[in-house]
Amino acid sequence: MANGNIPYKIYLSEEEIPRAWYNIRADMKTDHRPILHPGTLQPMTAEELEPVFCTELVKQELNDKDRYIEIPKPIRDFYKMYRPSPLVRAYCLERALDTPAKIYYKYEGGNTSGSHKLNSAIAQAYYAKEQGLKGVTTETGAGQWGTALSMACGYFGLDLKVFMVKISAQQKPYRKTVMETFGAKVTPSPSDTTNIGRKMLEEDPNSGGSLGSAISEAVEVAVTSDGYKYVLGSVLNMVLLHQSVIGQESKAAFEKIDDYPDLIIGCAGGGSNLSGLMSAFMADKLAGKTAPYFIAVEPASCPSMTRGKFAYDFCDTGMTTPLAKMYTLGATFRPSSNHAGGLRFHGMAPILSQLYHDGFIDEVRAIEQTEVFKAATLFARHEGTLPAPEAAHAIKVAIDEALKCKQTGEKKTILFGLSGTGYFDLGAYMQYNEGTMTDQIPTDEDLRRGFEAIPKVE
Amino acid sequence: MANGNIPYKIYLSEEEIPRAWYNIRADMKTDHRPILHPGTLQPMTAEELEPVFCTELVKQELNDKDRYIEIPKPIRDFYKMYRPSPLVRAYCLERALDTPAKIYYKYEGGNTSGSHKLNSAIAQAYYAKEQGLKGVTTETGAGQWGTALSMACGYFGLDLKVFMVKISAQQKPYRKTVMETFGAKVTPSPSDTTNIGRKMLEEDPNSGGSLGSAISEAVEVAVTSDGYKYVLGSVLNMVLLHQSVIGQESKAAFEKIDDYPDLIIGCAGGGSNLSGLMSAFMADKLAGKTAPYFIAVEPASCPSMTRGKFAYDFCDTGMTTPLAKMYTLGATFRPSSNHAGGLRFHGMAPILSQLYHDGFIDEVRAIEQTEVFKAATLFARHEGTLPAPEAAHAIKVAIDEALKCKQTGEKKTILFGLSGTGYFDLGAYMQYNEGTMTDQIPTDEDLRRGFEAIPKVE
Repeated sequence: MANGNIPYKIYLSEEEIPRAWYNIRADMKTDHRPILHPGTLQPMTAEELEPVFCTELVKQELNDKDRYIEIPKPIRDFYKMYRPSPLVRAYCLERALDTPAKIYYKYEGGNTSGSHKLNSAIAQAYYAKEQGLKGVTTETGAGQWGTALSMACGYFGLDLKVFMVKISAQQKPYRKTVMETFGAKVTPSPSDTTNIGRKMLEEDPNSGGSLGSAISEAVEVAVTSDGYKYVLGSVLNMVLLHQSVIGQESKAAFEKIDDYPDLIIGCAGGGSNLSGLMSAFMADKLAGKTAPYFIAVEPASCPSMTRGKFAYDFCDTGMTTPLAKMYTLGATFRPSSNHAGGLRFHGMAPILSQLYHDGFIDEVRAIEQTEVFKAATLFARHEGTLPAPEAAHAIKVAIDEALKCKQTGEKKTILFGLSGTGYFDLGAYMQYNEGTMTDQIPTDEDLRRGFEAIPKVE
Repeated sequence: MANGNIPYKIYLSEEEIPRAWYNIRADMKTDHRPILHPGTLQPMTAEELEPVFCTELVKQELNDKDRYIEIPKPIRDFYKMYRPSPLVRAYCLERALDTPAKIYYKYEGGNTSGSHKLNSAIAQAYYAKEQGLKGVTTETGAGQWGTALSMACGYFGLDLKVFMVKISAQQKPYRKTVMETFGAKVTPSPSDTTNIGRKMLEEDPNSGGSLGSAISEAVEVAVTSDGYKYVLGSVLNMVLLHQSVIGQESKAAFEKIDDYPDLIIGCAGGGSNLSGLMSAFMADKLAGKTAPYFIAVEPASCPSMTRGKFAYDFCDTGMTTPLAKMYTLGATFRPSSNHAGGLRFHGMAPILSQLYHDGFIDEVRAIEQTEVFKAATLFARHEGTLPAPEAAHAIKVAIDEALKCKQTGEKKTILFGLSGTGYFDLGAYMQYNEGTMTDQIPTDEDLRRGFEAIPKVE
C-alpha cells in the first residue's frame, strides 16, 4: 500500500491485533513512585491490594519490569469482535480546512459501549472470572466505563454492581438501560446501600454524587462482599497497560502506509485513552529515537495538568483509596455543574503525570467546552461521525494544528485519538445547538480550596 | 482466505465497494406494475413525477431496463467513509446456541446515522445537489432516515427540512438534536406550517402524527417551495436500487471465504433493508440458479405481507401520493401505540411485494415484539452489539433457524441483515427490561377498517 494511495480507513487483519500489551513503565527511566497506603503512607504491597483487586491485576499494577505482558487468548478472541479499530484518514476534514497537513484518527468508538474503555473492561472481567469470583463492583460517571464493563461481564457471565453518579443516572437514564440490558445492576450514588453512601446522604440528602463518591461506594461493597473485587476503568497502571493496544495498532497501521506521525494529540481525563494512543510511540521517545510531538488536551473546567499540583493524593472523594503521585486538583475538587461530558476526574494517571513532569509529554492545552462543541460539529458534518465531547477536545487541537500548517505550508502528519461517539451526550449537543452552553473555568480560589484537601506527604 | 479459518469480520477493500447499483427490476420477468396518478389512475410519467422528485432520481425510479447503474464518484467517495460494511461471523452467538449452523450478519449500523439508510440518503442528496437545488424535504418516523439524510445534506451543503412524526419527536428529542447538529431543520408533524398539517390539527389538535401525515407535509412543502424537491427513504424503486450495495458487498465477501448462504433473513418495514440485502442473491434465483431460501420478517403489530392485501394503494395518510401496487394494510392503518421501533409503514415496497406475490421470497414471518427484544438481548450479550429493534426481528428468526439446525444437525450457512444499532431505541429496551412491554396484534376488525380505505382500482 504505497503512500499517495492511502484508503480512507486503514484496517489491520485480525492476526495483527497485538499479542501482548506494552508496559511503558519498563521503559521509563525516571522514578516510579509507588502508591501509598492511606493509613501508614508506606508503599502498598500486593498483599494489601488483593482485598480490593484481582490477584493477576495487582501483579500487573505493580509490574515495572516486563516490557510486554501476553494477552490471554479469550481476551484476544473478544477483541476480534471489535478490533483492530480503524485508523482513518480524515480526507474530508482536510478538504474542509484546506490544509496541507495529513490528518489521521484512531477510532475507538465503533463498539456498542461507544469508547475505548472496552479494551480494559474485557481484560479485567477475564481475570476476575479466572480467579473464580462471583462478580465485580465499579463506578461510572457519564456511563462509558459502566457500559463497557457491563458488556464484558455479560460476556463472561459475571455479576456486576455499578455505582453510577446520581446526577448522571438522572440525566442519562438510557445509559442505565444499556447496562441493564447487558445484565448489570445499577445503583445511583450516593445510595443508602453502603456506609459511606449513607454518610454522604446524611451530610447532603440532595447530593448529585461524584465519581469520587461512587468509587468509595464500589470499593466498600467489594471489600465487604464475598466473591467480589473492585475494578476501575482509568488512572491505574493496569488500565493504561490494557489500553496500549490502541497505540500499537496505530503504529502498525502507519507502518503499512509508510508514514509516522509528527504530532500526536489525545484528550486526557483519567489518562487511559491518551496513554493508550501514545505509549507505543512514546517508547521511541524514551529510547532516544525520533518521536512525535505529544499534546495532551484537557477541559479548562477540570485542568488537572495545566493548573494542578504534582503531589500524592487520594483517588476518591471519600479519601479511602491508596495515594498516588499525580497531577491533582485535590480530591474535593469538582468541575462546575455546567461541565458536559466526561474528563471530570480531579487527578491524572500517575504514569502520564510522571511523563509530563519529566518532559516526555511536550505540551498540555486546556480548552473551553463551547470551543470543543464547535469543533465537534465541524468534524461531524465533514467526517460523518458524531464525536464524544471528550474526544472532541483532541479534534479541536488537531484542527488548530492543521490550520497552522495551512499558514506555514507544512505537510505534517497529525494523529489524534477519537476515543468515543457522542450518542450518549446529546443533551450537551442540544445545549450547544440552542446556545445555552456556557464556559465556566475554576477561579484561583476554587483551586485553592481543592489544594487544601491534598494531604501533606513526603 | 480458506474456509475453516474465517475471521470474525470479513472486510472488503475500498476498491471492492460496488461501482454500480444492481437494478433488480431488469431481471424480474414478472409484470412491472407502474405507479398510478392519484387523480387519473393512469401510469405516472416522468413529467408528472418531476415536480416532486429530482430528475435523475425519477429516471432511476422508472428504469426497468438497465441491470446496472453506475455510482457517481462523489457518492463512492462518501461510501468510503463508512463502507464496505463488515460481514461478521457470529462465532460467539453460535457457541451460545451450540449450533452447527454458521451464522453471518451484514452490519450496516456502524455509521453515525446508525443504519443502512445512509446508502440511499447520500445518493439522493448528491442528485439534488447536481440538479442545483437549494434543498430537499422529507419525513422521518423513529429518526433513522432523517439522521441519515441530515448527514448527507450536511456533507453537500444542502438545506434540509425534516417533518418528524410528532410523537417520535417528543419521545426521542435527541434524534432531533443529532439532525440539528448536522444542520437540518426539524418540524414535528402534524404542524401548522402546511395546509395538510393545519387540516390534520383541526381534526385532531392532539394528534401524535404518523409517517403518512409527515410524508404529506413534506411533499406539500417540496412542491410549493422554489428550489426544493422531496426525497423518501424507503419503499421506492430508486431507494431499493441504492441499497443494492449491501447485498453486492455481502456476496463478494462470501466469495472471499468460499461460501454461499443457504438462508437469507431480513426485517421488512418499507422494504429497503431487506431488498438491499437480498437483491444480489435474488439475481441468482431469477436466473434459475441455485439460490438461498429467503425469509422476510415483519412485526406482528404491522403485518403488511402476512395479513395485508396485494392492491394499489396510496403511500401516505393524506392520500396525495401516487398509487403503488403493493401489500398493504390500508393508508389509514396505524400499528398500536405500544409498538416500539420502526417497521410501522402500512405498505411494502412494490418490488418486494411483487417478488413475494410471485413466490421468489419464500416465506414471511410475523414476530411479536417481546420475542424480538428477547432475541435482541441475547444477541447483545454474546455478540457485543446492541441491535435496533427493527434488525432484531431478523435476529429472532436467525436464532430460531440456528436452533433448528441444532436439532437436525444441519450445517446451514445463515445470513441475516443487522440493519442498525439500538442506541436510539433505549426507551423500548427500558420497557422490555422493566417488564412493561406488551404485544398488541391487530384484530381482524382493525384490519378490515384499514382495508376499507384501500381505493378500488383495476
